Amino acid sequence: MSTDTQKLAAFLAELRYDDLPEHVLERTEDLLLDWLGSALASEGARPIPLFEAYAQKMGPADGPARILVNGRGTSAYFAALVNAASSHLVEQDDLHNSSVLHPATVVFPAALAAAQDLGKSGRELLLASVAGYEAGIRIGEFLGRSHYRIFHTTATVGTLAAAVAVGKLLDFDQQQFIHLLGNAGTQAAGLWEFLRDAADSKQLHTAKAAADGLLAAYLTEQGLTGAQNILEGEQGMAAGMSRDADPRKLSDRLGRRWALVETSFKFHASCRHTHPAADALLALMQRERLRHEDIQRVTARVHQGAIDVLGRVKVPQSVHQAKFSMGTVLGLIAVHGKAQLTEFAELALQDPAVAAFRDKVQMRLDPEVDIAYPQRWLGRVEVLTRDGRTLFSAIDEPKGDPGNTLSRAELEDKFRRLLAFAGKRSGDEAGVLIERVWGLRDSADLSNLA
Amino acid sequence: MSTDTQKLAAFLAELRYDDLPEHVLERTEDLLLDWLGSALASEGARPIPLFEAYAQKMGPADGPARILVNGRGTSAYFAALVNAASSHLVEQDDLHNSSVLHPATVVFPAALAAAQDLGKSGRELLLASVAGYEAGIRIGEFLGRSHYRIFHTTATVGTLAAAVAVGKLLDFDQQQFIHLLGNAGTQAAGLWEFLRDAADSKQLHTAKAAADGLLAAYLTEQGLTGAQNILEGEQGMAAGMSRDADPRKLSDRLGRRWALVETSFKFHASCRHTHPAADALLALMQRERLRHEDIQRVTARVHQGAIDVLGRVKVPQSVHQAKFSMGTVLGLIAVHGKAQLTEFAELALQDPAVAAFRDKVQMRLDPEVDIAYPQRWLGRVEVLTRDGRTLFSAIDEPKGDPGNTLSRAELEDKFRRLLAFAGKRSGDEAGVLIERVWGLRDSADLSNLA
Repeated sequence: MSTDTQKLAAFLAELRYDDLPEHVLERTEDLLLDWLGSALASEGARPIPLFEAYAQKMGPADGPARILVNGRGTSAYFAALVNAASSHLVEQDDLHNSSVLHPATVVFPAALAAAQDLGKSGRELLLASVAGYEAGIRIGEFLGRSHYRIFHTTATVGTLAAAVAVGKLLDFDQQQFIHLLGNAGTQAAGLWEFLRDAADSKQLHTAKAAADGLLAAYLTEQGLTGAQNILEGEQGMAAGMSRDADPRKLSDRLGRRWALVETSFKFHASCRHTHPAADALLALMQRERLRHEDIQRVTARVHQGAIDVLGRVKVPQSVHQAKFSMGTVLGLIAVHGKAQLTEFAELALQDPAVAAFRDKVQMRLDPEVDIAYPQRWLGRVEVLTRDGRTLFSAIDEPKGDPGNTLSRAELEDKFRRLLAFAGKRSGDEAGVLIERVWGLRDSADLSNLA
Repeated sequence: MSTDTQKLAAFLAELRYDDLPEHVLERTEDLLLDWLGSALASEGARPIPLFEAYAQKMGPADGPARILVNGRGTSAYFAALVNAASSHLVEQDDLHNSSVLHPATVVFPAALAAAQDLGKSGRELLLASVAGYEAGIRIGEFLGRSHYRIFHTTATVGTLAAAVAVGKLLDFDQQQFIHLLGNAGTQAAGLWEFLRDAADSKQLHTAKAAADGLLAAYLTEQGLTGAQNILEGEQGMAAGMSRDADPRKLSDRLGRRWALVETSFKFHASCRHTHPAADALLALMQRERLRHEDIQRVTARVHQGAIDVLGRVKVPQSVHQAKFSMGTVLGLIAVHGKAQLTEFAELALQDPAVAAFRDKVQMRLDPEVDIAYPQRWLGRVEVLTRDGRTLFSAIDEPKGDPGNTLSRAELEDKFRRLLAFAGKRSGDEAGVLIERVWGLRDSADLSNLA
């Protein structure tokens, strides 16, 4: 009788490119473009240059893998490190709901760096990325909500997701995948504590997850053995870092359920926990033709995870922290109708109307929303108007969710906006990159992907 | 009112070489020599070449820091990585009892690599190492016994200890040390699960702790901010990874208590949890003039931590696993009178008399021993002889403990044995290295330490 970990490892080992349904492949390309935009949007933005300088100091002067934000060649380890740091900065990368994992920012940097290092093709990169998503999402679901209360799942589980993607590029068999999970799982780290100080750890977390996962895969390929039961064992990840782990999640409908296509794209440039309420407020204001001045109070009825992550931020001290301020996000929506990168950069901290609206916003735990979470991220807001009316708005699938996803045209538009935000690449360059991603499955050479 | 973390950070920032008492400096030199021997003893031994190859593939072709086992120059990051992997392999590196931390294998690799990179002197290296020990030991004590049940403290806390040593070389002020703890603590990882499979993770753990700690320090120096309360905060290390954390331990008698001098040297080449019983059995057999054939049964009365760590190993499958087999260790002691590296390599798995004795050994939880632990590691064994006598033996300070420490002559002897075990360096070379360590405080150049 196989354990759930063994079933997962067997699935990963046996997965072939030809097994992937067309809609899974297409969505993988969508996610990759979305990720690339997020990485390039942070070009030059603090603290990414610190990681670039570290790679330059500690790594080789050149190499087969490429750092996206500066075009430099380096070894796969440092490319994964810097690219993962940079793709999680502007809070525009994807999110899988029920695992509360941001897969792109950990899977693609490791997979692309290893693929460039190993001279792999576009198809091999896509297959490896699917493997990373399928494993990472299931491991995130396995560790459950209690894990996410303290640990940043994208950091911890991200280490395993990145490792699996690289392991697939290295064509691991089942036993190698088990060693790999052991070697990656025992490196899994990342605590939410940084959030209340608006510290830079979020970028450190994704950087290290991708790089450590890659390290685990390369060492496993050379024969480094790992714990055989790192996920479920008595002194493993669940034992140490979860109180509600469910092993069946690890092997949930392998090969039948494609967890990757459940991943949401971010529309607003803020923490995903703010999106359902933002969409619900926008819908309500449009429906009732309200202006922000008409609103006296907003109560966002949310799941507990939103309170855990967002509850710390009262008055945001930085643009990054503003993305974790429910009041600021709803303020941008109410006053300016949107909360994209430009609004955050130019208005989130500067606009007195946004600050005034922020102070009208409160969060309250809603049992219905909480029970649905994390499978569904329901948006529920209650608005008290100046003229004394209490209005209510509910949305069940925020923009970007699988049932309300972005079209290729919307994704291209988002990509162009992300590159324009950084201001380093022309529209023509953006177009070239878009074409490269859409042509990925016929590409034998990944050295010029970006 | 300062938190305990702030007090610790202030102490680290203010610590000066001239503050160090002579006996602390001497013991630091002792510990460094002991560490160097442990690192060199693993020259060529699996899995260290995997880490060497990884450093060669991902790192620069040369650099200011040196990999001990092959003499290659590289960047500080990779020197810390490989040297930390190699110094924890032969189970001869030091241990601090009450924190259950092996400080040398994480502190010295990071400190030496950074000191070589930064062109620091022997005195600066000694000061930085003391800072790493004092912080790491207190953080280990802070996280307590519940942490150690699941997490490998030398991996988790080791990341912070290594970081602090490098931070001291970078001359951090109090605020930088707080950021540094945040950046290191959020990377802290390492699970005991590998032990039941005799997997290679122990080396991965120390490698990553030293390298990640160094990475945290270099990025902090460049301005990467970290959580301000990573140890005590609501979503910090203690919240996620301990159930009995005691913040007062973090600032316990700073500047008055030198925790470094409480560190034990290993005499037997096995897991430290086996040493008290090994010494007690040896004393009993000498006292009663017993041969191994005279013994029908041995009951080692131990603390719970020993059962947690050693209880998995029934019949060891590798030399490394044999070091975690109480039966094998006591078998070597009973049959051969010692359990050094050579006995493990040549007899632990091969000698039928050792295997037969192993099956006579059981562990039992002893409340007195358990209560004393981890401050004191008491040795208690009960022996049933073939002629039906029940004999008892107790030792209160195993050989190598602070109250029963090794002299410089014994340390030099151990160092020579460690180098002879690897068989790569002559006795003359060993003598040169010993002299270099004893002359460390007058050395301006650390490039040729080993």
